[in-house]
This record gives sequence, C-alpha cells and structure tokens, in this order.
Amino acid sequence: MKRIIIQYGGTGDLALKKLYPAYEHLMEKGDAFEVLALGRRFTTRDEFLSAIIRKDAPSSFTDHLDYLYYDMSDTNAVAILTARLKSMCGECDEVEFIYYLALQPSLYEIAIEQIQQVDNQLDCICSLTKKIVVEKPFGFDLESAQRYNDILEKAFTDEEIFRIDHYLGKEFMQNLLLMRFHNDIIRRIWDNRTIESIEIIFDETHGVDQRLGFYEKIGVVRDTIQNHIMQIITYLTMSEPASLNPKDIAVEKEKVLRAISPIQEFHMGRYESLGSGSGHVVHTPTYAAFKLFVNTYYFTGIPIYVRTGKMQREAKSLIYIKFKNATKQVMHDDSIAENAVIITIHPELTIDISMNLKIPNTSWKSKPVRFRFNQSETFGANTPEAYEQIVEKILQGDKSVFPTMQEITESWRIVEPMLQENLPVEVYPIRTLPRFALTMAKENGFTWFD
Amino acid sequence: MKRIIIQYGGTGDLALKKLYPAYEHLMEKGDAFEVLALGRRFTTRDEFLSAIIRKDAPSSFTDHLDYLYYDMSDTNAVAILTARLKSMCGECDEVEFIYYLALQPSLYEIAIEQIQQVDNQLDCICSLTKKIVVEKPFGFDLESAQRYNDILEKAFTDEEIFRIDHYLGKEFMQNLLLMRFHNDIIRRIWDNRTIESIEIIFDETHGVDQRLGFYEKIGVVRDTIQNHIMQIITYLTMSEPASLNPKDIAVEKEKVLRAISPIQEFHMGRYESLGSGSGHVVHTPTYAAFKLFVNTYYFTGIPIYVRTGKMQREAKSLIYIKFKNATKQVMHDDSIAENAVIITIHPELTIDISMNLKIPNTSWKSKPVRFRFNQSETFGANTPEAYEQIVEKILQGDKSVFPTMQEITESWRIVEPMLQENLPVEVYPIRTLPRFALTMAKENGFTWFD
Amino acid sequence: MKRIIIQYGGTGDLALKKLYPAYEHLMEKGDAFEVLALGRRFTTRDEFLSAIIRKDAPSSFTDHLDYLYYDMSDTNAVAILTARLKSMCGECDEVEFIYYLALQPSLYEIAIEQIQQVDNQLDCICSLTKKIVVEKPFGFDLESAQRYNDILEKAFTDEEIFRIDHYLGKEFMQNLLLMRFHNDIIRRIWDNRTIESIEIIFDETHGVDQRLGFYEKIGVVRDTIQNHIMQIITYLTMSEPASLNPKDIAVEKEKVLRAISPIQEFHMGRYESLGSGSGHVVHTPTYAAFKLFVNTYYFTGIPIYVRTGKMQREAKSLIYIKFKNATKQVMHDDSIAENAVIITIHPELTIDISMNLKIPNTSWKSKPVRFRFNQSETFGANTPEAYEQIVEKILQGDKSVFPTMQEITESWRIVEPMLQENLPVEVYPIRTLPRFALTMAKENGFTWFD
Amino acid sequence: MKRIIIQYGGTGDLALKKLYPAYEHLMEKGDAFEVLALGRRFTTRDEFLSAIIRKDAPSSFTDHLDYLYYDMSDTNAVAILTARLKSMCGECDEVEFIYYLALQPSLYEIAIEQIQQVDNQLDCICSLTKKIVVEKPFGFDLESAQRYNDILEKAFTDEEIFRIDHYLGKEFMQNLLLMRFHNDIIRRIWDNRTIESIEIIFDETHGVDQRLGFYEKIGVVRDTIQNHIMQIITYLTMSEPASLNPKDIAVEKEKVLRAISPIQEFHMGRYESLGSGSGHVVHTPTYAAFKLFVNTYYFTGIPIYVRTGKMQREAKSLIYIKFKNATKQVMHDDSIAENAVIITIHPELTIDISMNLKIPNTSWKSKPVRFRFNQSETFGANTPEAYEQIVEKILQGDKSVFPTMQEITESWRIVEPMLQENLPVEVYPIRTLPRFALTMAKENGFTWFD
Repeated sequence: MKRIIIQYGGTGDLALKKLYPAYEHLMEKGDAFEVLALGRRFTTRDEFLSAIIRKDAPSSFTDHLDYLYYDMSDTNAVAILTARLKSMCGECDEVEFIYYLALQPSLYEIAIEQIQQVDNQLDCICSLTKKIVVEKPFGFDLESAQRYNDILEKAFTDEEIFRIDHYLGKEFMQNLLLMRFHNDIIRRIWDNRTIESIEIIFDETHGVDQRLGFYEKIGVVRDTIQNHIMQIITYLTMSEPASLNPKDIAVEKEKVLRAISPIQEFHMGRYESLGSGSGHVVHTPTYAAFKLFVNTYYFTGIPIYVRTGKMQREAKSLIYIKFKNATKQVMHDDSIAENAVIITIHPELTIDISMNLKIPNTSWKSKPVRFRFNQSETFGANTPEAYEQIVEKILQGDKSVFPTMQEITESWRIVEPMLQENLPVEVYPIRTLPRFALTMAKENGFTWFD
Repeated sequence: MKRIIIQYGGTGDLALKKLYPAYEHLMEKGDAFEVLALGRRFTTRDEFLSAIIRKDAPSSFTDHLDYLYYDMSDTNAVAILTARLKSMCGECDEVEFIYYLALQPSLYEIAIEQIQQVDNQLDCICSLTKKIVVEKPFGFDLESAQRYNDILEKAFTDEEIFRIDHYLGKEFMQNLLLMRFHNDIIRRIWDNRTIESIEIIFDETHGVDQRLGFYEKIGVVRDTIQNHIMQIITYLTMSEPASLNPKDIAVEKEKVLRAISPIQEFHMGRYESLGSGSGHVVHTPTYAAFKLFVNTYYFTGIPIYVRTGKMQREAKSLIYIKFKNATKQVMHDDSIAENAVIITIHPELTIDISMNLKIPNTSWKSKPVRFRFNQSETFGANTPEAYEQIVEKILQGDKSVFPTMQEITESWRIVEPMLQENLPVEVYPIRTLPRFALTMAKENGFTWFD
Repeated sequence: MKRIIIQYGGTGDLALKKLYPAYEHLMEKGDAFEVLALGRRFTTRDEFLSAIIRKDAPSSFTDHLDYLYYDMSDTNAVAILTARLKSMCGECDEVEFIYYLALQPSLYEIAIEQIQQVDNQLDCICSLTKKIVVEKPFGFDLESAQRYNDILEKAFTDEEIFRIDHYLGKEFMQNLLLMRFHNDIIRRIWDNRTIESIEIIFDETHGVDQRLGFYEKIGVVRDTIQNHIMQIITYLTMSEPASLNPKDIAVEKEKVLRAISPIQEFHMGRYESLGSGSGHVVHTPTYAAFKLFVNTYYFTGIPIYVRTGKMQREAKSLIYIKFKNATKQVMHDDSIAENAVIITIHPELTIDISMNLKIPNTSWKSKPVRFRFNQSETFGANTPEAYEQIVEKILQGDKSVFPTMQEITESWRIVEPMLQENLPVEVYPIRTLPRFALTMAKENGFTWFD
Repeated sequence: MKRIIIQYGGTGDLALKKLYPAYEHLMEKGDAFEVLALGRRFTTRDEFLSAIIRKDAPSSFTDHLDYLYYDMSDTNAVAILTARLKSMCGECDEVEFIYYLALQPSLYEIAIEQIQQVDNQLDCICSLTKKIVVEKPFGFDLESAQRYNDILEKAFTDEEIFRIDHYLGKEFMQNLLLMRFHNDIIRRIWDNRTIESIEIIFDETHGVDQRLGFYEKIGVVRDTIQNHIMQIITYLTMSEPASLNPKDIAVEKEKVLRAISPIQEFHMGRYESLGSGSGHVVHTPTYAAFKLFVNTYYFTGIPIYVRTGKMQREAKSLIYIKFKNATKQVMHDDSIAENAVIITIHPELTIDISMNLKIPNTSWKSKPVRFRFNQSETFGANTPEAYEQIVEKILQGDKSVFPTMQEITESWRIVEPMLQENLPVEVYPIRTLPRFALTMAKENGFTWFD
C-alpha cells in the first residue's frame, strides 16, 4: 500500500518546526510514505527544498518529499491537486491519502470542500482509503467546531478523522495515566477526601513574535486552554477506565468534561509589547488564570487553579497536587507543611512527592523533603517528540492519542465564557505575572507554587 | 549540681565501644559530669586509662574519667564504693548519682542490692538525686524481668529508672514516627485496607566472636527480638498519639504490644561454626524468623514477617511495607508490580517509595521505579550516634527514648514461646540464610525482599 | 399517531399473565394504542376473547384488542398479516407498529424475516415508525444471540429494538441504584475495602408445571441467570454513572460485565419429579449455584455467590451484602456478628441494615439488630407491575429499562461454561436445597443467609 | 463484710428522687448494705421515715435505712457521727464506709475535713475500707475542682474516689460506644472524611422550680455542659480503646478532651420568669448554645454544635450526625437530602439512619427515609435507671461509669470561658428557643434538626 500525506500549510511554522523533523525521523526508522507539501511561498520543489530543508537532510527523507504550489482561491486548485495525486498514485493498487490540515481554522471550510471534490474525482483509480488530520484548535468556538465537524463528516467517517492535540502524544501525559491507574497507593490518595486543591501552571518565556498574524485571531484560550489544559484536567481527574484502550479512556474523559460547568471565575491579560511593531493595537489575551471544579463524586469540591501564558520570567510547566493538612491543625504547628505531588514537565520531567521528615537533632521538628523520580535519569533521554508519536499513530490508524469530537465539543462549552467579546484584558509588563493571578490566589486563600 | 555516672561493667565491651565515645563527645560539647568506671580488669586508674583510652583523648574527657577496682563478691565492696563516692562529692551541695548497669542480667540482683546499701549510707551528706540505668535485655524472660523490676522499685521510683533500648536513640526510629504522623498521605495508606504485609529484615555479617560467653546465655531472641524488633513493630503500627510527648507515645505503644499474641509461628537456627573454638557444643540460636499479627482495628490481618540474625552474606537492615495490588488483578497483568515503602537503615539511611511508571515507547507498560529520600544527602551525615542521644537524655531526665516497664513486660510475653527449652535449632552454614526462612516465606506465599 | 402492538405469541403464557393485564391497565389510564394478538389456538376474535379475556374486562381495553389467526408456516402468512395491518391503519397519516415477539427463541428467525417482508410491503401507505420487542432470553447462547441480532439489525436500527429483561422494570432494581448513588454513606462502604462477600438467593417454590415444553429447552441458566441475575450483579457493582440517563448507566453496566470472567465454579441440579408426567427423562437443570468475581478496582476480590432455582421449600429472593468483621478479630470475641445489608425482594420489599447494639444489663455484650426500611410501609403498596412499566417505556421510546445488546452479549459470554453439553446435573428431592449448594458454601467458608 | 453508705444531703432532692429508689431496688434484688441518711430537716428517724419514705416501702429497704440529725456547723458534729458509725459497725470484723456527698459544691471542703476526722478516729476498731462519692458538678470551676481534689486525695486514694456523672450510667451512653466499636460499617463512616457536622440538642420543658436556691449558683454550664455534654462528646469522638475496660476507655476520652480548645463561640440565655417569685433578679443562665471542635486526626474540622437548657416547648434529647452530601453537588439536585444518623434519647430511645430511597413511579427521584432501631421494641423496656447502675458499680468498686479527675479537669478547662463574670445573658420567653440559637445556626450555615 502506498501512503501519501497531503500537507496543507506545507510552508508554515508547524510543518517546518515539528512535522518535517517527525517525517524525516520516521522515514529513517523505515516507515514508508510520501509527503506532498502544499503552499504558496514557493513555486517549485527546488525552491521549496533549498529554502526550507537543510542541506544535509538524508535522501531517505528528501526522496519522499514533494511540493506543489497550491492556491486555494485559484479556480483550478482542485483540478491541479487531483492531477498531481493521480500521478503520484501511479500503478499502485492500494493508496491511502492522508490530508493533513495545518491551517488557520478560518480556512478549514474551503479546504475540506476542495478535499471532497478531489476525493470524488479520485474515487475510481484504485482501491483507496483516506484519513484527514486537523490541527487544534478545532474550530473557533463551540458553534464553529460543530459546523466544521458536520462538513468533515460529509466526506469522512469519524474513524477517518484525526483531531490533533499534540499534548496527547507527550510521554508525560501517558505517564500521568499509568501513575494513576497502575499504583494502588496513588489511587488511595487521589480523591476529594485527600486532595485539597490542584494548581496547573504553564508559563512560557517567549511571546507571539512573528506568529502575530496567526495568534491575533486565536489568543491563549483557543491556543492552549481549550485543548492542552482541558486534556490535562481530564487525565488528572478521570475515573479508572474499563481498559486502557482508546475508547474506554475516551468514555472516562468525556465524563470528566461533562462534569465541568462553563468557567465562571477567570481573568485575562496581554503583555505590554504585544503587536508593538504591527502598527495597530492588539487586544488578544496572552495570559489567563481561572478556577474550575470537576463535579464528579470523587473530585467535587477540589478547586483546580490554572494559570498559563506568555512572556513570563521563567519557563515552567507543572502540576501541583496539594493534599489536605490535618496534621498542622491537630499538632497546632503551622510549620508543618502540606504533602504534595509535583509533576514537572518543564524544564525537566520529574515527579516529586513532598513529605515531611524529621530534622535531625531536633525534638520532633519536621521539614518537607522531596521523594523524586527523574524521567531521564531512570529511562534515559530517549523520549520521542510528541509529533513523531502523533504521526506514527496516524499512519497506524491508532486513535489513542487523539481527542474525540465529544471531548472537543465539551471543552469549547467549558471555555466559552472566556471567548466572549469585550472582556477586560489586563496589560502586564513582560517578564511579570499579571496581577490578577496573584489576586485570584489571595481571594481563594492559596499561593501559587513557585 | 554535680553529676556522677557510676559505670558498672566499666571495662566491658559496651562501655569501650559505645559509652566512652559518647561520654567523650558530650563532654567536649560541654556537658558537665564525672564518670567512675567500675571493673576488675585493672587495679589502678593509670592502668585502666593506658589500656583502654586512646592516647590522644582530650583532657576535657580524661580529666573527668575515674576508675575503681570493684569486685562485687568482695564483702567490702559496698564500703569501698561508698567511700569513693563520698570523696567524689566533696563539698558539693547537690549531687546526682547515675548508676549505669552495663552487666549481664544475672548480676543485676546483687548489683542493685549493693546500690541500695550504698544509697542508704550516702543519704545524709548532701542533697541527692539519683537515677539508675539498666541495659537491654531487661531480664531473661517475663518472670525475671518482673522480679528485677520489683527489686529496682524498692530503691528507685519508676521516674528514676532508665531502661535502655538504644534503638530508640536512633534517628531513623524517630523519623519513622514523624513520617507516619506528620504526613496526611502516609496516614491514608498506612492501614489494613491498603497494606498487604510487612517484612522486617535485620541481617548481620558478623558472628558472636569473643562475646561468646555473654551471647551463649542470651541468644537472638533476648539480644534483639524482645527489644529492638518489638520496638520497631510498635513504631510501625502504633496509632496517632495525643501528642509526641513520651507518655502519650508510650500509651500507644503499649496498646500495640497488648494486641500481639505470643508468637506461634517461628523458627530458629545457629550458624555452623558457633562456639567452634570453645570446646563445647553451643545450641544458642543466632538466627530466627517468625510471623506475628498486631490485632488492632487498623492493622489486624496484616502479617508481619521478621528475620534476623548473624553470619549472613550481606549486612542489611530494612523494613519493607508491601501494599495490596488490585491493579494486577484488574488489569490481568502479572508484570504490574506492587507498590511498596522501603525503609533502609543499613547500609544507608534511605526511604524509597516504589511505584510503577510508564516505560517510554511502550503501549501502557509500566515498571517499578523508586522515589527516593536519602537522609545524608538531604540532612548531611551529622546524625548523632544512638548512645550519645541516650546518655544525653539520661542526663536531662527526658524519658522519650526509653521503653516503659509495661512495654518490656509485654514484649517478654510475646516472645516467651521462643524462649522455651529444647526448641529445635537448625544449623546453617555461615554466609547463608537458614532454610526455614525460605520455607516460611514459601508457606506464606511471599518472597523476602532481597 | 396510531400505535399498534402486533402481539406474537398472543395466546401464550406471558401474554395472558403479564401483558394483557398491563395493556388493560395502561389503556384504562389513558394510553392510546391497539393490540393485534396473533395465535393459532383460536380462529376468530370472539373465540379468543371469550376463552381468554375475563367477562368483566372494561371496553376501554377490549375495544382495542383484536385477534388474527396466524400460522407462520402458512405460505400466505405474510400477505394475511400485511392486509390486516393495512386495514388497521385506515386513513391515519402516521402509524407506529410495535412487533412484540413473545416466542420461543427458535422461532425468532422466521418471525423476523416475515416482519421484514411485511415491513417492505407496508412502507408506502403512510408515515411509519416501527419498533420491535424481543423477550429474554435473547438467543440460546452467545453465537445465536449475535446471529439473531444481525437478522434484527437488517430490518431495525438499534434504537428501534427493545430487548426485554422485565427485572429492569421492577421498582426494587431502580431503588438499588438510587440507594447506591444517592447516599454518601452507602458509597463509603460499598467496595472491596469493606465488603467481604455478596450472596444472591432466588429460590422459587413452584416447578416447571405445564411450561415443560418451553422450559425443557431453556433451563435455569437461560431462564434467569443470563438475564435477571447478571443484571442484578451489574446494579450491585457498577460505578457511579455520569448521569442517570440510560446511556450513561449502560456504559457502567457494560464495564461490570466485561470485568467478569466466564464462570468457572458452578453446579447444577434438577428436581426429582421434573418431567415425570412427560414420558421421557428430562435433564434440564432447574437449580444452579455458582461463584464469580467482578474484577474492577473497587470490587475485585469480593466473591459473589449465587443460588437460584425451582421447587424449594420457601420462596425467597434476597441479596445479602456481608461486611468485613475486624471487630471480632480485634475483640477476640466470636459472638460479635458481622454487619450486613439485606435487600429482600420476596416475600416483602425490605432493606435491612444489620448492626450490633448493646444487650441491656450486660457488660459490653452486643447482638445484631435490624435497622429496617419497609417499602410498602413507607410508600404504600402502589408499586406498579414490572410489565406495565416495561410496556409504558416501549410506548414512550424510553430505553432506560432495557439491556443493551452489548450487555446481553457479555452475559452470554459469562454463563457460556454453564451451557455446555453433558454437564453433571444433580437430582434433588423437591422442597430441598441441592447438596452442592451446601458443599459450595462449605468449601468457600461461608453459610448461606437463610 | 458490712457496707454502710453515709448519705450526706440525705433529705435533699437527689436522695429522694433518685438514690432512695435505687437503694430500695438494689436491696430488693439482694444487695446487702446499710444507709445512714444525714440531714437537718428532721430530728428523728421516725420523722424522717414518715415524711420521706412512702408507707408501702418494703422492710427489705426500710430495715436498712437509718437517719442522723447532722449539722456540719455544730462543733460536736464529728464526734456524733463517729459515735453513730462505731455503733453501726458493732462486732463486725470488716466494714466499708461509703461517704456519699450529695451536697452543694460549696460544702465539700468542710464535709471532707470532717470525714477525715471521723476517719482518723474510726481507724482502729476493725478492718476498714472506705470510698467517697462526689456528685457532679465536681467543683465550681477548674481551680476549685483541683482544690477539692487535693483535699479529697489527702484522705482517699484515687481508687477510692467515685466522681459521679450519672449520664455514664445510662444505657444509651454505653450503647453509643458499642455502636461505634462493634460495627465495622459505622467505623468506616465515623470520621471527618464523611461527617459534615454534629448537633447535640438537649431541650427540657421544665424550669428551675423549687431548686432555685441550688440552681442559682450553678447555671446550665455547671449543671449539664461541663459534665453530661462533655461526656457525650467524648463518647461520640473517642478513638477505639485498647479494650472496653474502664482504664482503656478513660485513656481515649482524655485524648478527646485534651484536643478541645476552650470554647470561643457561645451564647447564653435565661428564661424570662426565672426567679420571678424570689424577690430578686436572677441572672443565672438556663440555656446555652455553642460550637466546638475536637482536634484529633479523625475529627478535626467537624463542627460540633450544642444547644441545651430549660423551659422549651418540647422535651427533646438527641444527637444528629450529618454526613457530607456529595450527591447533591454531583447531581445538581438540591432536593437530594443528606444522610444522617439520629440518636434520640428522649422521648424514646431510637437510632435512625436517614437515607435516600426512590419515590415509586418517579424517574430517579429520591426522598429520605428512616432505617430505625427502637430500643424498647427490640430489648423491651427493662432498661435500669442510671442511678441504680451507678450505685451498683460503687458497691462493686467498678469504675467504668465514672469520669476520671483528668476528664473533669479538662472539661472545666474547656467550659471556662463560659463561666466568666458579666457575660451577656439573653432573656427568652418561656417555651421559646433563644434567638441566639437560631442566629448561631444561620451564621454557621446550618439549621437545627428539629
């Protein structure tokens, strides 16, 4: 069987930074497939290759990388793409087309329509299977996500549609599930009888930079909260699935999302210099902090605090599980720290259990110490890139690292209040935390784990 | 106030190896007290000093170390000791005598009688307080322990009696309590709903050596099981005390001991070469393995397996808390390991939490990894020797590291079946584990954590 | 809209005893629908009515009850039925046909084929909707159940198929779910940390009687175990559903069934006089006892013991939840009884919580007393018959009281070992419990709650 | 052995209403002892008998009931009492004197001094043992309780002192302990992970009446809160004792009391007509409401609300254990009631478990129903009076129903803030609840269980 990835957005940021390296690596490892990059920046394959692919790329990759100048607004677009695909198929009996849409959501409708037309014209050459891959965010909001999906489902079955959230390809996410479900002692402490609160902190140091055009229409809610953050929350709070196969996991994730009300308590900000070179004022939020609850039997009552965004002093990605501290109360000793589990993704993959042990030579004084697991020390630094895993699963037709449409829909429902027009957006100096993050913490009686 | 430690067994093993170093260190640190060593090996202080105390010992120590040739069977013994003590008191208004009995239990009765006589004759010189310190094992069995205590209590109040189990002076023992009572998450998993079994392994590489004369009458049960091992079990299973003061802790420890039935399932062995140079066969057990239960609400049903003794291949002191493993059953996957907490005392002070995490690049395969706390890495290697802590507490009159008479009595009751005459004793080659240890494990469906 | 129930097996036991009373009652309450009874016992409606329907039946019922002599083996069968249905539709714009199959499973295939043909010929008259109702057992075994379903799904969507297990229409079953999910204290004690074992006892006093022809091919496994008993087990052990709507409940029930292995430990018997008047030996089992486990995180390790069957001394339907008894062990007092929840369905709907309270004028002696809830005392005896609820839900198109095909499939998989040929069948005297029930209890260390 | 109860306050309320009936009943049952009533109301035994003892009292009682006119302020008092006791002893070899002080606390000092003198003079006649019984409240406050105790302990050992709180003689109190410690399922739900709050309501309908003189100096805090209420709280929250013997229970009760801080949130009132006939204003509180916490690991965080006092519309004594209600939150359905355990002492001894069950013919609607245990229905109405049990235990020397001095001391410490001078006292109309009880409930977000 011949497999062809038709790469929409073939000269874009995602393709260059994430997808081509993943393709190259997979081809080196022996995966057999062709890539047809579509774009408007270059007219010929040679231009494309010389501008975009580094000189020393191995032929195992470049031999399978083709390029097509493709302008969706051109009336001949469909015909041109169809012709090229037909020629790529050649004499092959069986072909799989993988349409990979690395596009602005606003271009989805037209792209999918054209794919349907291409599809109709190709349908007779040989035995065809097809897949379509769509990047997050899937849609702009609840309504558009459902609309796009309706369009997609005219041409593709749900089984053929791969909706990407590349966080699901990350090793730490999968580890999170195993940590929860392969450890009886974790299961004993992972509920609202023991957990006091959860903090999720995803701070980036970089800004929007040259992606302004893209980001301006997206903002932090669509960029990371509706997808990555919501997925993290499902992994943290889902119940034991019947098995670890994708469908059973999806059942449990959907239960979590359905148990979350639309976010009521949230705040947004943008960094001061955002869009400063663009000649116009940009109000797009680049930072947000909010609080939500997962109203299931085992998690109801645990506040989950999230803060995430750009242009912070320190790059930091972590989840802080704070446990109830009866000891402090019972011992009337405020110096007794709470227990915690700290899952750090960045700068390093570590899991810490924070517990109190005796300070030697004292009379029953304790201080918190860390019981640490370090991913790279234990397993080496051989963790594959998320996109490599993602692409491999697409080729294999394995849906375990893709959110379902219902998950996406519920996530949009949850974040919808944060997408309203004309919400206040606090301006914050770069390298500083917006004030609202601190205010929110104070009002809720906690301190961010910094 | 002047304090004088009257050191019975002043030329014995314990004094030389543990007590004098502790005294020296405490005096260097500034604690003020005199030591009067009693013994029969030397006639004069000079002999004593030159034979026993290293040349470069600081004068802060040697200036306060005196020696008296003392033969308890001598009819003048009491008079001689009384005279020396009077002279040591000098003009002092207030004196505290600390009688430290580092003797064979068989000599206790005569020693205490003489102390009473000394005491009576000293009673008028000046304002006196007194303490008496007795080493473990306190007695040979339940009956003799109570008898010795009756004798002791004629001359001393319970407040004045310090019964030693030097394990209570060890940092790791105190840490064990804090770990249990200062950590809400540990408290959640530390009961019979979560723990499957507990193993206590205390293997020594050395044998009895020149201590044969002493050890022959003692054996492993009196040497370590009745005291150290029983104390460890109380620390592992006692309920939350009302506070961490000694009395409240003792209340809870006594509850544990009362909830243990006399040991029924046990096995004993001695190493092949035991007493080989002595010209007679020695049947004293040097190794034992046994199983018991703590029948309190929170621990009933958890088997506690102990093995301990001499002449093993590897020196190893550890406690292995094994948790129930529902995951294995539910996932039908025998490769999923149980969770465990491993408290290692020797060769290094560490606490490990063993949990399962994902093996990268696999589909939901996990393996056990260690979340580790290392005492010396975190707190430095400044842990004081147990005997230094013990002596310091005696000087301060703080009873927090001494078992109560009730604890001692209950412990004797528990081990009594292991003290019967003519029990079978398996002979094992040195550097090997007695077979019964393995048989017992097999019969109980577990494997020693090795 | 006109609704017509086409009653296959219209002169059979089920129709007469359960369905017609339900229809009559629903019509009296105002539900509007027609019933067309099919059968071979009578040639005319008058015969049918006078033989089968009691004289004083209200016209609100009899006016809507029609009869058709129907022989499936007749080549004209389809034509005749089609004609009658067309005439019943009359000028109506909208009609719903409800095909209700109260037939031997062996007749399903032919019946469904004919329904398809009827359906094809009716398809043009007016706006049609349709439903099909199939009785339990659905199929003879896993294979045939799937085969029947494939046939059904050619003519009907899953949404249109109602697979009956009338136990799901019983008030006590629904109460079981609410008891578990509307009570925080029940949720706290309903897992393998607290429950020791579960017994399910469904003893009937009556035998097979005139139903021999039917029962002979069915036996106790297909008659009650594959359906009622498996459903009870799901209600007892399912996790909290996302909501109480039918789909969410089905998700959780399916998880339970998937977590049960095919039954390994089982025994079967038949009562001595079974088929005594029939002139041939009947080996069909009329009683069974077995043990199984639900291998989910919260229930793994709890043995579920079931016994059920015919010709017992006492009619008794109950579920006995027995809790772990640490108290007995801790107090060393065998007279302290275990706690239990006892759900009695027959002879009376009651729920008892059995707890120990002090016997007055004793020193700390307790005995078990019952904290009782009695359904009829609290809510009156107005509980509707199961079949009335079932039929009402069919009319409404509400699937909350019907097992899904996946549930049925999993149930067949679980009981399959009990359906093998040539299994030993113990003969038991009537009014006695088969010996294997007692042996099984003894071997498993329990006593049936009698 | 001869036993003589010397009844101080022999013509007082307590003696007449409670003690003499208990004595009579015990003597009828065969207990052998003499009673010497002391008093000033009558000069002779005949007067005493005819005024106080009903005509038809059996001779088994009256034959053993003597009377002595006794005025403690009389200088001959001691001599007179000594003489009488000597004569009562007669030729007996062994006598036990039981001094029963049913007096105002203010008379304790003088009474005890005289007892000591009597005691000294009796000491030589025959073999004597002695006991002293003191009524609650023991002392007026922390300081006086300790002072009285110091006086007592000059003449009596702690073993000889019986401090009464007659609540401990009540069957329901002992039942409370057994309910908690003989039932594994109760133990599972009886902690701060499951309990939301506890209400203790002890409302009386009667007022102070002719006891004004006594009550005026006492008030509600000393009359019931420092003793009965504090004891109830220990029974509700104590940990599992090592055994059910008095010492082990006392250990756990003391732990509870030590874990309670002096009450901060409290309110007091007196009923309008209090002392109306006395010619002076009486400010003594007759009603109080307050809140406290038991800061042990298992109960910290559970508010305990108490209200108690006189002149209420309805006599009601009950304890309401309210459980957390996650269901309501998870189901977003405010009509789902909380679970509760309701222990009713008055008007009838019952224990109810309140749980939600399905309202028939609804779709998943539940309402709370009661699972009830009724003491007299199950065990008959043969519960002995508290004082009979109390006196029997005194005769037997069994201290299981008497609070220890430490319990009393801790209780005084806890209520001390409520004993300060010049606290505000709300005046409430009779048969009404003081407003502060409602305000307190409102401020704490709960409603009294009425």
